[in-house]
Amino acid sequence: MSDSPTNTLITWVEVSKNSDFTIYNLPFGVFQNKRLSPRIGIAIGDKIVDLSILDQEGFFSDMFLPEGVFLSESLNELIALGKVITKKIRERVQELLLADNEKLRDNSSRGKVMVNRKEATMLMPVKIGDYTDFYSSMEHATNVGKMFRDPENALLPNWKHLPVGYHGRASSIIPSGVPITRPKGQTKDPETGAPVFGPSKKLDFELELAFITGKPTKLGDSISTADAEEYIFGFVLFNDWSARDIQAWEYVPLGPFLGKSFASSISPWVVTLEALEQFKVESPVQEPEVLDYLKCAKSHSFDIQLEAYIQPDGEKGSKVSTSNFKNMYWNVAQQLAHHTVNGCNINVGDMMASGTISGQERDSFGSMLELSWNGKDAVKLESGTERKFIEDGDTVIMKGFAEKDGRRVGFGEVKAKVLPAK
Amino acid sequence: MSDSPTNTLITWVEVSKNSDFTIYNLPFGVFQNKRLSPRIGIAIGDKIVDLSILDQEGFFSDMFLPEGVFLSESLNELIALGKVITKKIRERVQELLLADNEKLRDNSSRGKVMVNRKEATMLMPVKIGDYTDFYSSMEHATNVGKMFRDPENALLPNWKHLPVGYHGRASSIIPSGVPITRPKGQTKDPETGAPVFGPSKKLDFELELAFITGKPTKLGDSISTADAEEYIFGFVLFNDWSARDIQAWEYVPLGPFLGKSFASSISPWVVTLEALEQFKVESPVQEPEVLDYLKCAKSHSFDIQLEAYIQPDGEKGSKVSTSNFKNMYWNVAQQLAHHTVNGCNINVGDMMASGTISGQERDSFGSMLELSWNGKDAVKLESGTERKFIEDGDTVIMKGFAEKDGRRVGFGEVKAKVLPAK
Repeated sequence: MSDSPTNTLITWVEVSKNSDFTIYNLPFGVFQNKRLSPRIGIAIGDKIVDLSILDQEGFFSDMFLPEGVFLSESLNELIALGKVITKKIRERVQELLLADNEKLRDNSSRGKVMVNRKEATMLMPVKIGDYTDFYSSMEHATNVGKMFRDPENALLPNWKHLPVGYHGRASSIIPSGVPITRPKGQTKDPETGAPVFGPSKKLDFELELAFITGKPTKLGDSISTADAEEYIFGFVLFNDWSARDIQAWEYVPLGPFLGKSFASSISPWVVTLEALEQFKVESPVQEPEVLDYLKCAKSHSFDIQLEAYIQPDGEKGSKVSTSNFKNMYWNVAQQLAHHTVNGCNINVGDMMASGTISGQERDSFGSMLELSWNGKDAVKLESGTERKFIEDGDTVIMKGFAEKDGRRVGFGEVKAKVLPAK
Repeated sequence: MSDSPTNTLITWVEVSKNSDFTIYNLPFGVFQNKRLSPRIGIAIGDKIVDLSILDQEGFFSDMFLPEGVFLSESLNELIALGKVITKKIRERVQELLLADNEKLRDNSSRGKVMVNRKEATMLMPVKIGDYTDFYSSMEHATNVGKMFRDPENALLPNWKHLPVGYHGRASSIIPSGVPITRPKGQTKDPETGAPVFGPSKKLDFELELAFITGKPTKLGDSISTADAEEYIFGFVLFNDWSARDIQAWEYVPLGPFLGKSFASSISPWVVTLEALEQFKVESPVQEPEVLDYLKCAKSHSFDIQLEAYIQPDGEKGSKVSTSNFKNMYWNVAQQLAHHTVNGCNINVGDMMASGTISGQERDSFGSMLELSWNGKDAVKLESGTERKFIEDGDTVIMKGFAEKDGRRVGFGEVKAKVLPAK
């Protein structure tokens, strides 16, 4: 259909040249504003298409959608209708936004349907069931291994055989814009070696992408890599806030806990798998060969540029990292196949994050831990300000977008300001 | 009130001598049967008090409860009303069941209110938000350390300073009675050292108790040990199924993942904190002294006997472990204070499990890993059958109860049969 790579699509909506929200993207989100209660929309340029009004006006009447499905505080019920339906909805909106389609363009309801994005508050797009964080960038895992374990054997023996991951805390995942509070906790005093309590001194971000599952499985069932994409609804930017000093003291032997669970921030617009399909690139060669259940017949890697910025209070934002989602050693189909190979069931609205995505060069590392090499080398911002970790008053911003043949599909941003510990 | 340790309470309901569900207990659960849709009840003897009927008949009319609050598929909405209300409901039921109270005893609706427990199917009591598993028994952590790390330094340096825990998978927690399927996964071949795929060869149980949170916190807020019990609604038995061979290969450095996430089984009746209050005992001495935020002004430890049984197909059940919840080094108030000290928010219906509860003697170890010392010594069942780990067709049953001054408060059981891998 209209997403075919040979078609150039032109819309009647004004979309600036560098907008992430082009006619090729059309991500889903949940918004409200002073007048409107929470509802589901699709972003285009500086506008939001209010799907609830579009529905009221009969634009989806041939789809027999459940009443009020767009007047929801989350996408879960909508996603649960299945990809056949959500694809149809997105395609219908795309048709309606085409320059030569007069149905909405010249309709008297157009003013009500098109909401200003600036006036809207974006809410959490989904009610998250379980949240999993992977550890799928080889460069990140290698950097961490070099710093904390053996530089000669930085990757642990299991790393190239399975996509290492762990369960994370779902309750503290928050949408972009909500500030975070510097966590307090127990750390090991580097001088005395004794445990001490206080605000984290090594607050960090992690530059990640996360996917949201769109189809449930039953307990005991598994998903093959071939079927995995059927279970992925879309993606968001994911800042996996980390307190490195808390994490370092607590994580043996059961993994990260309070060093992570104080907050994770996500971008509010869910970019669909369909919109990202055209940016697929070959997956990295995996050597040694993986076990059969992790083999893929086709690529599940995406060329998505990722950027992290630090904006100290009263300064402009400064880019500190430029990475790419294609850097991932383990792809999303392998993650999902591995996650369910033991029969673990997934629900609509589960979130699975990539783990920090680092590239090979220093300026592509996806965390301050790596960028400052655990506080050894300060990172210089454009203003001259230096950072080893994140300070109170700093705002961390992440952006992500794919671009090819003049088509751009982006995530907008996820940002959050850091408030001092209570 | 009537729970005072000096009162002996007598009910008009027939309750057998060894029943866990005495007039002192009155746990909450969600049930259905052939005639009745899912609803909330309180167990007494072999009966369930159908709270929805009791409500319809006006027995709670002075409490102004939300309409249909008992006609729910989970306790979440009820629990969210707060302890003041749920305590009142439980106390009202206790009053109504007293031998000399004729209000229900002689009421024409009594037949409808009292449902046979045998004919009921118990459902998941709560819709679980996040699930956390602690590692709070010193004997268990020591045993595991001896087996897999250094027998001379079995406990890791952080263990006595904080209640180590990790996030677990909530989606795969199932109620007693639902069979589990032996998980498949990746393990390291002990002979070649190469990763191989197949059914787990070291399927294990873990004997645990879990508490359910009853009051939410906001992101950024913490709970003190002094306030912690306000946030605990009640407890269930928890079998944290584990695949030791999968876990051993995957768990470094981010903790247990697929070795646990295939299933956890819980007992369906939630025993309230109020019912357990009278079984409090002194908490173990903690040496070295813990940091201030983990100190407790009073005891939060409970004398609850815990038992695990293995029942091979066609045989009788055989007790393999007798442990006690008082064996926990870290108590529930410390767990909750630690969990939230970084500002991590909790919701109504979160589940926090203790970790395997082992005592000092071999026959009090809470897992086959410890009982068979990682498969070195087979455990002999009463029939003569031997077990190193759990075999296909085995049913694992756990029981738990407190008893003092002729009063018994128990959990019933959690049981699940193991089906062969698919």
